[in-house]
Amino acid sequence: MPRGTQFGISIVDLSIMINTLCIIGVGLIGGSFAHAVKRAGQCKRIVGYGRNKASLEKAVALGAIDAFSLQLDEVASDADVILLATPLGAMADIMTALKDLISEDTIITDVGSAKACVLDSVARVFGSMPQNFVAGHPIAGTENSGVEAAFPELFANRRVILTPTDKTSKKALATVRHLWESTGAMVTQMDAKHHDEVLAATSHLPHVLAFTLVDTLAQLSERQEIFEYAAGGFRDFTRIASSDPLMWQDICIDNKNAILKVIQAFEDNLQKLKQAIKNEDSASIRQVFQSAKQARDEYRLKLAEQDRPDSIGKNTSS
Amino acid sequence: MPRGTQFGISIVDLSIMINTLCIIGVGLIGGSFAHAVKRAGQCKRIVGYGRNKASLEKAVALGAIDAFSLQLDEVASDADVILLATPLGAMADIMTALKDLISEDTIITDVGSAKACVLDSVARVFGSMPQNFVAGHPIAGTENSGVEAAFPELFANRRVILTPTDKTSKKALATVRHLWESTGAMVTQMDAKHHDEVLAATSHLPHVLAFTLVDTLAQLSERQEIFEYAAGGFRDFTRIASSDPLMWQDICIDNKNAILKVIQAFEDNLQKLKQAIKNEDSASIRQVFQSAKQARDEYRLKLAEQDRPDSIGKNTSS
Repeated sequence: MPRGTQFGISIVDLSIMINTLCIIGVGLIGGSFAHAVKRAGQCKRIVGYGRNKASLEKAVALGAIDAFSLQLDEVASDADVILLATPLGAMADIMTALKDLISEDTIITDVGSAKACVLDSVARVFGSMPQNFVAGHPIAGTENSGVEAAFPELFANRRVILTPTDKTSKKALATVRHLWESTGAMVTQMDAKHHDEVLAATSHLPHVLAFTLVDTLAQLSERQEIFEYAAGGFRDFTRIASSDPLMWQDICIDNKNAILKVIQAFEDNLQKLKQAIKNEDSASIRQVFQSAKQARDEYRLKLAEQDRPDSIGKNTSS
Repeated sequence: MPRGTQFGISIVDLSIMINTLCIIGVGLIGGSFAHAVKRAGQCKRIVGYGRNKASLEKAVALGAIDAFSLQLDEVASDADVILLATPLGAMADIMTALKDLISEDTIITDVGSAKACVLDSVARVFGSMPQNFVAGHPIAGTENSGVEAAFPELFANRRVILTPTDKTSKKALATVRHLWESTGAMVTQMDAKHHDEVLAATSHLPHVLAFTLVDTLAQLSERQEIFEYAAGGFRDFTRIASSDPLMWQDICIDNKNAILKVIQAFEDNLQKLKQAIKNEDSASIRQVFQSAKQARDEYRLKLAEQDRPDSIGKNTSS
């Protein structure tokens, strides 16, 4: 985002103008980041790498990236900043390949939905934690995948969590933070392990439940009829079950411990509620529902505050 | 809905024009029904009954009903059709009170989310199943309650399930069906027990899971932070946890058996998935997620077909 003008002089922080940004994995997240950073004028050139030529050609045609290659060395060697936007499971292989291609100054960041596993993997590949690696996670997305679903406003007013370590260089951290801020995101920092616990609760558990619910219903003999009589609430509730199975398979494994812990907490509560229903214990059932409604209503109010008129974040529907 | 005009003659089916419709419980559903039927010109007069005077005054001010009383006899005795739109738990008491107020010709219908329990309760109150009682359930709603949340398009293109018995009079059934069709709803019929099983899967289980999830998160020590980092998917997933706790408490008890059965099926599948995550068994995890995504994507396509340009149904947001 240009810093605006004062006294007719354009004040752009040129010290963080990036010559070449390389996006590895130009899908919904990588593509939206490219669109947003380009719109903000933060990079002179954005190049992409991936395995699917047709998809990368689409990314160029849609204006997300300027050029691409199917050879990692052709795009990574000159890059000042590299954004890893592949599924978590592909991260270690990519890092191994990158290790010998990049200079000491190259800043690398990622968008993985779990962070401790990424840090572990990077430290393993590099022998120790490189100072120019900044782990990050934008809390934004839709249930759609691919660069055709990307749009520049995806991160506007959304949170991005960076999880630097005590090895992380201040300059690398500031650069990555600045790039995210240029997309309109609200950037915060926390410890990787804490990030993983919070996200297990707010994102990973809901996805696990939505996938499990829809899979359960799909197994019932009345499958056709069931989906026929599903109403608006069901539509919203199950939307995230359309998310990318491969991405979520990786998240479940890479954030295994935190996810298993919240699944267990959920199961214990469901067990209690089931018992209350069995016993027709109205008071206990109502207590759960009221506590949930109160928390959800508070959250709704908070969202309403966040969704100021200048918010340009958009969500997909159906 | 007026039948349209042909050759300059207005063809309204006067045989099913209702003199007085009485709505018992003028909230989101009762109020929306009143709005819609009034707009369709199907009733000469709509009266309301409830316990909350302020809310009934609001219903009159908003144009949903023409008049109200806090005395059941003042509104029920003259009614040709009575719509019961109270929580399920209040149904038996209302039926008991109505029994001595109504004539043999009065048609009664309801909007309860579970149907076998309503039929049982009506048969118990009347000694046997009255021929003019037509059980019904509109598959529509929002997470908001109260007449201020009511709107005439709530049922447009939504399904309404009627569950007549072999005692139900054809005329009563046709009248209730006609009224619902005038709201723009798609009316179907099925057996009450089957209705309860289908709805346990598509509506009751998702609500139980959403309430349980939000309650589980609200119990965590990081409660504040967790809701802060929740993204769009979470917003959609938990929307139904803002639903009316009292209404859902009644549903859980009144459709207990069917609900316990689907909770069990869900728990079994969650258990299996948990084990797969524990074992880092990618293939099994992916299989669940892919099967869910496929079913959800099919459902999404079906919805897209249903949401024709003439659809005027609306969903609330946030």
